[in-house]
Parts: sequence; structure tokens; C-alpha cells
Amino acid sequence: MSTPVLAVTTGEPAGIGPELVLMLAAAPAPLPGRVVAVGDPDLLAERAGRLDLDVELRVLDDDQEVPAPCPGVLPVWPVALRVPAEPGRLDPGNADYVLEVLDRAIAACREGRAQAMVTAPLHKGVIIEGGHPRFTGHTEYLRDACGIEEVVMMLATRATGRELRVALATTHLPLREVPSAITIDGLCRVLRILDHDLKRHFGVRQPRIAVCGLNPHAGEGGHLGREEIDVLVPALTRLREEGLLLDGPLPADTLFTPRHLEGADAVLAMYHDQGLPVLKYAGFGRAANITLGLPIIRTSVDHGTALDLAGSGRADTGSLRVALEMALEMANASRLS
Amino acid sequence: MSTPVLAVTTGEPAGIGPELVLMLAAAPAPLPGRVVAVGDPDLLAERAGRLDLDVELRVLDDDQEVPAPCPGVLPVWPVALRVPAEPGRLDPGNADYVLEVLDRAIAACREGRAQAMVTAPLHKGVIIEGGHPRFTGHTEYLRDACGIEEVVMMLATRATGRELRVALATTHLPLREVPSAITIDGLCRVLRILDHDLKRHFGVRQPRIAVCGLNPHAGEGGHLGREEIDVLVPALTRLREEGLLLDGPLPADTLFTPRHLEGADAVLAMYHDQGLPVLKYAGFGRAANITLGLPIIRTSVDHGTALDLAGSGRADTGSLRVALEMALEMANASRLS
Repeated sequence: MSTPVLAVTTGEPAGIGPELVLMLAAAPAPLPGRVVAVGDPDLLAERAGRLDLDVELRVLDDDQEVPAPCPGVLPVWPVALRVPAEPGRLDPGNADYVLEVLDRAIAACREGRAQAMVTAPLHKGVIIEGGHPRFTGHTEYLRDACGIEEVVMMLATRATGRELRVALATTHLPLREVPSAITIDGLCRVLRILDHDLKRHFGVRQPRIAVCGLNPHAGEGGHLGREEIDVLVPALTRLREEGLLLDGPLPADTLFTPRHLEGADAVLAMYHDQGLPVLKYAGFGRAANITLGLPIIRTSVDHGTALDLAGSGRADTGSLRVALEMALEMANASRLS
Repeated sequence: MSTPVLAVTTGEPAGIGPELVLMLAAAPAPLPGRVVAVGDPDLLAERAGRLDLDVELRVLDDDQEVPAPCPGVLPVWPVALRVPAEPGRLDPGNADYVLEVLDRAIAACREGRAQAMVTAPLHKGVIIEGGHPRFTGHTEYLRDACGIEEVVMMLATRATGRELRVALATTHLPLREVPSAITIDGLCRVLRILDHDLKRHFGVRQPRIAVCGLNPHAGEGGHLGREEIDVLVPALTRLREEGLLLDGPLPADTLFTPRHLEGADAVLAMYHDQGLPVLKYAGFGRAANITLGLPIIRTSVDHGTALDLAGSGRADTGSLRVALEMALEMANASRLS
């Protein structure tokens, strides 16, 4: 079995994405998998020179094989910048470049030339400004590009002994809109995707998922909210009948303790700030964002473009390395499943 | 300066409270401070016998001095059970007993015979059933008994190197009601209490408080909710003019990372499940609940009555020990302030 190819999109050219990829390529530890950077080779060469990183860029055609990982060497699938890029200075003129980089990686995964894609951060605002007013982020872009209806966002970290995985039933919604956004059907769809992808990409034969309640103390029998009784329990009952192994709904503040976490392959939090503060506390700098439900494998860093750090070489490569490692493991597990 | 007296209410007599106090008294490490248990001496003797704990109970009158801590000795301020108590079997007949235990400890603190009170768990439902339909918990009972309007719930743990403290702007509310419950005036009151008590009880000269946003990403400039702009920022601006040192509103998932936590004496979360999952993950079994805003010092365990464990001796004394240690430190800091 050959080593999976991981296509890394270098993301916003004014951000830290390009240098993070270069820093990992220059490091003495080999990159996990056959990593190929997608981006402008001149930009990468300029950034490497600025940071004094000794990296040999190997520009590849689509039909050339991606070589085995070798410290100091970075294969590149080239995409040309539209306008020159300077660290820290966003330019809407490169919005199309950032999207073309994404499209190249998506196509490679769909055509089987790459087995996973890993995304460095982009900047939503500048893409919108650059002529894409309906752009709402990587995840939605991938969902639409793959022609599917629903994806699930999961963060994972291995900072602690056992991998901690937290998926979200809702993502970027005002808190006020969260309770009504959670429905029996919606929750069933999210949990089916989570269960399915834990099997397909993580090699878990029969996933056990711990599900948070929506309200504090999981509603305390209806005293602190009715959604557990009216929505969560009916959804979980339906899914258990389909064979899913689910714990909950559990109070979020007792769920994230060893007794419940030890048996769980993933946690489903009902909303962003119920699950992600714990995840990022547990694994800061060592967490990756994974999009479930896609026909391809996609992981991502868990941080933004960090414009203030761009070009300084002081950005932390921890999250990108974890995102690469997880993509590699997912690609390997998927071939076995 | 004499060692502070800590009055420990032994709580629900069918729960684990009585045995937790006995287990700590029997341990080779001396109790922190001059601990005196408030409860029924016969119940304590029975529970000690059942668990084969070698503890000498010293029943004291109110005017007798509480002796210095000594392993194997437990001073007791006696309150008589109303009906016999069996581990694991709630009896509404003892509701008045549980409240009298509380009243004794409150009176001792208010009269200066104790410098802090530490509460073992009680069972809300059985107190209501026992003829107190408006009882809603320890915290509210203490608030009313002390004749004040507002208290603040804070959890603290020392499981990690630096003490992590998380206070809540709202506590036991359905999630749906949280956004409207947060007002400029209410937030100002909570933060003033937090600031004041960090100075008075924790010896922090100029507290720095990190404040979570309400919405994910702290609203992302209004794209994910308006409460940060309409409520949180105006409240924080007003308080900064009063001299409070406040960071925020910050996204909850980046706040709980070393960069922000290192400089903060406490975190204010907007609601229960935004702050407590992290706190309990960080310090499970080593966390205590502290009521701020009272004229007396009160700490508590962070767990319930655990009826299924009562009488077994398998309950974990970690949280009660931390609650005692924190009460002692708070009492000492208060004398210096």
C-alpha cells in the first residue's frame, strides 16, 4: 500500500499558512504522509527566503507522482497569485487565488490523486470583499463543492492521552437561536453522520457517542428546560432503534470527566461554546478541525490567519502537524474499512 | 492569630456527606483549620462504626472552644435528627434537620464563632417534600438567611498548577432564557461582587477578570449575535470607568487557553455550560463551589448526595478536602485584608 497523498492548501497568502507549511517541511522530522502544498511557488520561495528556511520546492504537474516524504523537500501543485502578497496585508485581489487553491485540492481528492486535504486558514472577510458575497467559510464551500446537503464539524485533540473528539450539533449561530435550531430530524442526521464517519475514517467498529443535553444539568427532568424531553430523548430513542450506541443526554459538566469520556469515541455537544472551550483547553495548539459527512477527507488547523504573526516565523506549527497526522490516519483507516 | 474555625454542615443524612467528613477526620493528614462538624452525633457515630472509621467525636457546646486539628478527632456541634436516617433512603421527615444544621452554621459564622462554613450536599427535592416548597438550594437559602439580594456562584479548582476560578453570570436557567437574562445592570452587579470578593477573600489586590462573550466567537462583530455590542461591551465600559480590570468580551473557546488564563484571577462565564465543563474537566474531584457576595465565607463540594454510594465508604473526599482548604485560605486572607 503506498503512502497516502495529503494536499495542503496554503490558504490566505498574507497569513501564516504558507510559512507553517514551509516550517514543517524544513523541520528534521519527516512530514506525515506524502504532503503536497497547493499554492504559489514564488510566494512559498519568497516566504522561505524571508524566514531563512532551507526548503527545496518541487513543482509538480498533476500527472507526476508525489514523492515520498523527505525533510527539506516540499512538493508543490502550483496555483498563481493574482496580485503580489505581503505578510499581514489582506488584498481582495487574491480572493480568487485562495478559492482556486481550494478547488485544486478538492479536485485532486475527488479524482483520487490525493487521499485527503488539509487546509491552512483563509480569511472569510477578504474573500467576500473579493467578489464572493455568499462565501461563509471552508466547510460550507466544501459541502457545496461536493454537492451534499449536510456536514458535521468535529474538533479533535491528542494532547491528552486518549484522543478527545467533540462534534457539534449546531455551529456558528447566535446563542439565542440555538434551542430552536435543534430538531429531532436534524439531530438524527448529525448523529448518523458522526457514527458513520467514526466507522469509515477512524476505524471504530461500533462507535459509542456521548451526547450533551442542551440545558444545564440536561434539563434536570424538565425543571431547567424541556428540550431534552421533547427533542433530544426522542431523537436518541429513534437512533438507538437503528443500532447506534449513544449515552445521554448527559449534563455537559459531568460528561467531560473521566467516567464518561473513557468509554466514548466522540462527544456530541449541542452548540459551539458547550464543547469547544473544553476541547481547546485540553489540547491547545494540538487540535484539528475535521469535516465529517464529505465524500473526501478534510482536516484543518483550529486557528485563524494570525495576520499579526505572518512573516515572523513565530507562529506555532502544532495544529497543522496534528491536522496532517489525523488526515494521514484517517486516509489509512479508510482504505482498511 | 488563632486558626480559623470551619463549620462543616454534614448535609443530607441519607447521602455521603456524613461519611465524607468522618473519612477526612480519620485520615492521617490533619484537617485544614479547626473543623467542627454540624450534625447528629449519633448518626456520625453510627456511620463511623459502619465504615470502621476510628474517629473520636467531641460534642461541643456553643461556648466551648473548638480544639486544634488532630487526626482521629472530630469536634461536633450537635443537631438532633428528627427521624432515623439510613444510607441511600431519603426521608422528608429530616428536612427540618437539614435546615437546622444550616442555620447553626450560618449563626456561628455571623456571630464570629466560626470564620467560614463548608457545606456537604443536601437533596433539594426531599427538602421541598418535607414542607419547604420554596426551597431552591443552598445558595439561595444562604442569600436569604443573610438578608442580601444577590450572590455569585464561582467554582474553583487547583488540580492544575495555577488555581482556575470560573464565576457565572447566570446559573440554573434553561438555555433559551439565558440571552435575555443578561442585562447591563445585572452584569455590572455580578462583576462588582466578583471583583470585591477576589480582593476581600482571595488577597488579590487588583483582580483581573476575563469575561466570556455570550455568543460563539464573542459575536464576531455582530455577525453571530448582538448581545456583545448591546449589553456586554457597555457593561464592561462602565465598570472599567469604575476602575475594574477586565479583559473581554472574549470568545469562550480561546479564553480558556494559557495565553488568556495566565493573566486572569478569575473568568466570568455567561452561563453554566459555557464555564463549568472546562472547570470540571480541569479539576474533576478537586473542585469547590464558592458563594460570593455573602457577608460570610461559604464553600461547598461540587457534587451531589450520591445516594447510591452512601454508606459504602467509596465516595471520593477530594472535593470536600478542597472546599475545606479553600475556606481556610479565604478565612486567612480575609483577616489580612
